[in-house]
Amino acid sequence: MVNFEKVSKYINSHLDEHLRKLQEFLRQPSVSAENYGVRDCAQLLKTHFTDLGCKNARLIETGSFPVVYGEYDARAEKTLLVYMMYDTQPFTGEEWTSPPLEARLVEIEPFGTCVVARGAINSKGPLIAFLNALESILAVGDEIPVNFKFMAQGDEELGSLHFAKFVEDHKEMLSRADALFGPEASQDEKGKVIMTLGCKGIEYVELECSGKLWGKGPTQFDIHSSDKSWVDSPAWRMIHALATMTSQDGNKVLIEGWYDNVKPPSKEDLELIDKLVKTFDEETVKHEMKVNRFMNDLHGKELLLQYLYSATLNIDGIWSGYTGPGSKTVLPHKVAVKIDARLVPEQSPEEIIPKIRRHLDKHGYSDIIIRPMDPYDWFKTSVREPLVQATIQAYRKLGHEPEIWPLGAWSVPYHLFTRKPLRLPFVDAGLGHGGRAHAPDEYFVIEGDERVAGLAGCEKSFVTILDTYARYGQK
Amino acid sequence: MVNFEKVSKYINSHLDEHLRKLQEFLRQPSVSAENYGVRDCAQLLKTHFTDLGCKNARLIETGSFPVVYGEYDARAEKTLLVYMMYDTQPFTGEEWTSPPLEARLVEIEPFGTCVVARGAINSKGPLIAFLNALESILAVGDEIPVNFKFMAQGDEELGSLHFAKFVEDHKEMLSRADALFGPEASQDEKGKVIMTLGCKGIEYVELECSGKLWGKGPTQFDIHSSDKSWVDSPAWRMIHALATMTSQDGNKVLIEGWYDNVKPPSKEDLELIDKLVKTFDEETVKHEMKVNRFMNDLHGKELLLQYLYSATLNIDGIWSGYTGPGSKTVLPHKVAVKIDARLVPEQSPEEIIPKIRRHLDKHGYSDIIIRPMDPYDWFKTSVREPLVQATIQAYRKLGHEPEIWPLGAWSVPYHLFTRKPLRLPFVDAGLGHGGRAHAPDEYFVIEGDERVAGLAGCEKSFVTILDTYARYGQK
Repeated sequence: MVNFEKVSKYINSHLDEHLRKLQEFLRQPSVSAENYGVRDCAQLLKTHFTDLGCKNARLIETGSFPVVYGEYDARAEKTLLVYMMYDTQPFTGEEWTSPPLEARLVEIEPFGTCVVARGAINSKGPLIAFLNALESILAVGDEIPVNFKFMAQGDEELGSLHFAKFVEDHKEMLSRADALFGPEASQDEKGKVIMTLGCKGIEYVELECSGKLWGKGPTQFDIHSSDKSWVDSPAWRMIHALATMTSQDGNKVLIEGWYDNVKPPSKEDLELIDKLVKTFDEETVKHEMKVNRFMNDLHGKELLLQYLYSATLNIDGIWSGYTGPGSKTVLPHKVAVKIDARLVPEQSPEEIIPKIRRHLDKHGYSDIIIRPMDPYDWFKTSVREPLVQATIQAYRKLGHEPEIWPLGAWSVPYHLFTRKPLRLPFVDAGLGHGGRAHAPDEYFVIEGDERVAGLAGCEKSFVTILDTYARYGQK
Repeated sequence: MVNFEKVSKYINSHLDEHLRKLQEFLRQPSVSAENYGVRDCAQLLKTHFTDLGCKNARLIETGSFPVVYGEYDARAEKTLLVYMMYDTQPFTGEEWTSPPLEARLVEIEPFGTCVVARGAINSKGPLIAFLNALESILAVGDEIPVNFKFMAQGDEELGSLHFAKFVEDHKEMLSRADALFGPEASQDEKGKVIMTLGCKGIEYVELECSGKLWGKGPTQFDIHSSDKSWVDSPAWRMIHALATMTSQDGNKVLIEGWYDNVKPPSKEDLELIDKLVKTFDEETVKHEMKVNRFMNDLHGKELLLQYLYSATLNIDGIWSGYTGPGSKTVLPHKVAVKIDARLVPEQSPEEIIPKIRRHLDKHGYSDIIIRPMDPYDWFKTSVREPLVQATIQAYRKLGHEPEIWPLGAWSVPYHLFTRKPLRLPFVDAGLGHGGRAHAPDEYFVIEGDERVAGLAGCEKSFVTILDTYARYGQK
């Protein structure tokens, strides 16, 4: 059992030191897309694991950037697998008002002092805050109330290319855990705490139609557009192929069997939705996306059900021929489209490509190729899981009633842990707030106000969550 | 009457000088797209007009680069308006084996010595060869057999943006001519002489579908693709809008009234096609375009009729969302498409945009905007025109039977001269050969062989054509 008051005091009195540790970590570049500083950052993180008292902290090679792994044995009853990432998005070409590697302290209204740096909120801020919290528990002479297996990946921003293999290769080691925990700053800018108990899956593919594979049209380069009168066009072919895939409004997928495995939300999910609809703020979401109207002018519960439980097919990008200014007259020899399918329970990423393939073949488009990219499976954790319930209790102790989402519409690779063989429940949690992830002037709140926790509040929330979880279910 | 033998001898003995004049002109950059050397090139060309004896050679401002204008009065019966261009394509970023501004002499099989430079064939080589030919006639003491009005435009490669206004503003001055002549090197690489008696017109437009104008979908930036489940997609909208425009094979335009004004080829054209089909080399054309099969596997006369007399709708380019490597998950807020319609007799560029607009409106796509770009009208000259017949006679004197095309599938702004009020017949003509226009290592043949004329043969062919034309129809 942790003496929260003592730890809290320690955090308050060592906040400058904790901030410096965060700034040091932010100043260490780790841009995976540009191979910039990533391995140095991995070494630095390994040092932090070792300093905390992890046995055998090490870099585990994956074929890309290593996973930084470390185990902390508190001789506790429960063990958490901690998911982290230490790489960041690039910042080349972006215009920052404060340089992305300087980690300057900047006043941002209404939060007070914030640290501005690439990776501040995604995810170096919460990562270091979590380690600071653990160190503080030890510093006051207490023991950390749970055991940890830390794993931090270094190519999350590249699409976790090698992470599935890492999990597969180390499933024995990773399986000796009770749940998966992701340190996060979960407050929105008004201080509301968001908890998301799952994510959709995704299958991202590139379709390409070319004269080369079709056997008609130009096969090697874009030819003069005057030749359209006697030469077929791969671009028109792709347009007509795509048009067969959805209803005219682009919202219903016409690929055979697309919705076969879509299951209606469970009773538990519907109960959560009924609560969620009371606090969910449609106008703010529309304002943030700069969207005037939701699809079919839905709102309330219908809107949330549509958002969370519908299987989609989205065009992420399309390009062909001349796309510069003015006019250039070409008949393009190929066209490519990036498409993503968001998968809801109980669709499987394995079913998507065969269904698209069959659809294209059936409509006479056997020559259009499908390049698979990053498949993630959907996953869910029950709100009744001890880790989830303990986190909700902890938030309430801290004065917050979390807004609980049974599913998120985005996709992360937690299915690797929630599915067979590991089957772990998970929570991403922690007070605190940051913003502008993947954008200039990314920030993480240090000072905070009465609604939004700062660095100290974030660290203390981790202590409360861990302590509550350790004691959860004990007689 | 020109003493061809004397002029021919003069050309042979002054070829080095003529080549140096060409090299000097090629070394003077005139890249209109980059505003690089264009006005200096205009000054140099004006000097050439003056040196030839043009009265009042001058630069006529157009709002872009000036037209270089000069009149040569030979006190002859006939007057030719000579169409030239002095600007070139850019070469930035291209890889040349011989620098594009050095105008080096390079051996190219089977043509022997060639000059390699940006603008060599398009169109500085034929331009200087033509001026050399005229100077040679004068140098041996003869008079040039026709009067000239030279006009050379400097923004041809930008789409002749200001040329229509120039013609309109000076129609009185330009109208006092019997025909339009374009100096050209008209031989293909096997030495066959091509004559084209017209061109198709073109209407080039950009279509854009955006959430902003639609009122649905993201309105200001690309949002996260997970939002597809509750937000509409402008990209899908454009796909479905485009799909309504053509048959599934992309070859028949389904826009109402598209073919209304398409007239079948005239009797004269059909006679020319019957001759053309005997020499037209389908396999070479396919090989050059890297096309395995023509549309619907047409060949022979049917292929030529399809090529020359069908109205088309071509996708020149399309782009939306993320088009880089790997996966980025976005729901794009807009999509743009570049489309060109090639116009055959008697379609008018004015009818195209209203038809597309009505089609989009009828199908519920009133929000998709149409940005007009470069309209050119189609035009034709009769094979029975004196200038055309004289040119054919001249080619035969030079030992060549020209392959006559009643129409070309591409588009140039000659409609400004062939239509009201000027109504001039025209010919582009001259022996000689060059290649790789708009591409690296552009060349113009200097030496030549028994089939393909070199610089001297090109210059002599101009003398023969002009002399034959001057005497054509005389008792």
